[in-house]
Amino acid sequence: MNRLVALLTDFGTNDPYAGQVAAVVAAETDARVISLTHGVPPHHIQLGAHIVDASLDVLPPGAVLVAVVDPGVGTERRGLIVRRDSRWLVGPDNGLLTPTEDDVRCWTIDRPETWRAPVAPTFHARDIFAPIAARLANYERPDWLGSLVQDPVRVARRSAYADGPNIRGEIIHVDAFGNLITNIRAAFVQTAHMYETQVSDTRIRGLASTYGTGHEPVALIGSWNLLEVAVPGGSAAQELGCRIGDAVTIERVDD
Amino acid sequence: MNRLVALLTDFGTNDPYAGQVAAVVAAETDARVISLTHGVPPHHIQLGAHIVDASLDVLPPGAVLVAVVDPGVGTERRGLIVRRDSRWLVGPDNGLLTPTEDDVRCWTIDRPETWRAPVAPTFHARDIFAPIAARLANYERPDWLGSLVQDPVRVARRSAYADGPNIRGEIIHVDAFGNLITNIRAAFVQTAHMYETQVSDTRIRGLASTYGTGHEPVALIGSWNLLEVAVPGGSAAQELGCRIGDAVTIERVDD
Amino acid sequence: MNRLVALLTDFGTNDPYAGQVAAVVAAETDARVISLTHGVPPHHIQLGAHIVDASLDVLPPGAVLVAVVDPGVGTERRGLIVRRDSRWLVGPDNGLLTPTEDDVRCWTIDRPETWRAPVAPTFHARDIFAPIAARLANYERPDWLGSLVQDPVRVARRSAYADGPNIRGEIIHVDAFGNLITNIRAAFVQTAHMYETQVSDTRIRGLASTYGTGHEPVALIGSWNLLEVAVPGGSAAQELGCRIGDAVTIERVDD
Repeated sequence: MNRLVALLTDFGTNDPYAGQVAAVVAAETDARVISLTHGVPPHHIQLGAHIVDASLDVLPPGAVLVAVVDPGVGTERRGLIVRRDSRWLVGPDNGLLTPTEDDVRCWTIDRPETWRAPVAPTFHARDIFAPIAARLANYERPDWLGSLVQDPVRVARRSAYADGPNIRGEIIHVDAFGNLITNIRAAFVQTAHMYETQVSDTRIRGLASTYGTGHEPVALIGSWNLLEVAVPGGSAAQELGCRIGDAVTIERVDD
Repeated sequence: MNRLVALLTDFGTNDPYAGQVAAVVAAETDARVISLTHGVPPHHIQLGAHIVDASLDVLPPGAVLVAVVDPGVGTERRGLIVRRDSRWLVGPDNGLLTPTEDDVRCWTIDRPETWRAPVAPTFHARDIFAPIAARLANYERPDWLGSLVQDPVRVARRSAYADGPNIRGEIIHVDAFGNLITNIRAAFVQTAHMYETQVSDTRIRGLASTYGTGHEPVALIGSWNLLEVAVPGGSAAQELGCRIGDAVTIERVDD
Repeated sequence: MNRLVALLTDFGTNDPYAGQVAAVVAAETDARVISLTHGVPPHHIQLGAHIVDASLDVLPPGAVLVAVVDPGVGTERRGLIVRRDSRWLVGPDNGLLTPTEDDVRCWTIDRPETWRAPVAPTFHARDIFAPIAARLANYERPDWLGSLVQDPVRVARRSAYADGPNIRGEIIHVDAFGNLITNIRAAFVQTAHMYETQVSDTRIRGLASTYGTGHEPVALIGSWNLLEVAVPGGSAAQELGCRIGDAVTIERVDD
């Protein structure tokens, strides 16, 4: 299993920002450097947190994820190292890195001698988080780089919730294929039961196992481990007229 | 010569899909991982196949190309390993990987114990093709990973064709500079002869060797090994008012 | 410190051009290959040169930067190796690689036996600059690859200039966050003094140290080492109605 440093930001790739972060990491560690995405919409911490959730177990154990959606860069907000599911996460302490509920161990990043110098106050990703990530990939210990803290910020992700026989959630993302990704987690759905999904004025009976070959909308648990709605060979967003924030309800109908 | 795994998809880079594929490959092999492009328009198998054709001999012998434009993911369509020009190709059996005419050796991917587990039925690129690519880069043999097949799908790429003294083709792609890439292959054109190219209502005399410095449209064999039409310092698509699918004719005029 | 080859082009990532350059480099050297950006607007040499200036000292000493914004590809313009601040730069001789004023050592690339063969006349980045970069990363000497020249092209970058107590510059780039990047270099500004920045009809008192948490526009020296104007949590370009080319003036007001 190769060591890996993965990057996830809202920097886009038209500016040199994402590339500079990669350069700093690659200069300091032999671990592989890959970009998960730099396409998080600017400052959209919630979607960034969902992508962290959906991507973490794709990375090998021991991997380091530098995740930066950081509207508060340069303010008093702390930088954080998080240990989660045998991976390391590095980024701002604004909820991006932390799960909603589970306990995780966190260190605040507070040893300037382990950073790049000088630090640009507008670019902690390059000057603080990238070198910290390289050090973690090089087997430095988190207590050499920071101090344990008990109170990381938890994002108030809007979660789906149970409402009688219904689970009520919403669309959190429309992907490049027009698939509608919701915040309804796989754990809400038991394959032993029959469900109907309501999105906009479309009602979808049953859960599909894949996008399939028909032209009717399907609901399924996709690769995000979340409920998604797709139109095979087409764009669900266009054909159903849906967008981010729209309500999605899944109802258990077999009892 | 370093071992290389190259990625080519229609995933875009705003979602974490392309990055997750890269992460799975990089975790399992020391071979270098690079992205050729993730900007194939969604589900556009034909253009993907042209990019495969144009890029294969840029990769070093022994390289592995993971090419995924896969509207049928999760259906009965097979996964394929193709041996072509001393490179390995891995992806869906929908014509993307196979040349129009030449014979190639193909294996259907049918050994689930060599895949990631569990397999998301909507994301074979990450859970099947990426681990297979890593294994090929690690010198595993294709018959450990699949079974020889004789009937891979061949894309009915619309080819250019001879019509008396004319070759009739069409624009298959407009690149970021506005250059018009056609489906007329270099082999159709002999430099010993004089040609005229007709696109929209523009007629271009002769073939240039490069984009040059004038402001008149030029026709030339470009880096895709295909006939392309360019306007030096400008966008041929804009200045000639052309787009994908428009007819292009090249006529031999020296006899 | 790991060896590094960084790429900077105007190719975009929807075509396979940038990926092909990365593939050729990665096949020929064990040095790491990273992309700074491929999002320079097509043929925009000046902005490319500014990104080179802003990124060079982020790369480790000995790194190789392949920088290609090359409207004259295939014409008589020369290819260049530049030694600058202990890094190597490789690309077209059109001012992209050279500083406005400082002396640097330059070699014209003139040994075809060190290139890929055949060379596509429209794609020197892949067939000439990429293999030259790999050779430099592999410790080949520049005089094995080219000949010393004294007259590299210098871009006439429009520089900011002093006008009495004012420095007059302009907006050269709007980044993904809407921050306005100017051509006024950090060296023009002494932190011991008080300044006011004028952009469009907005006047900003003082220089901030970071983007901060208010909602008022701030002026600051950002990660480009240039004066930039930002609106915390928003887009300065949108909120101030500014775009590339607009005048920016900074006035020293403490005497």
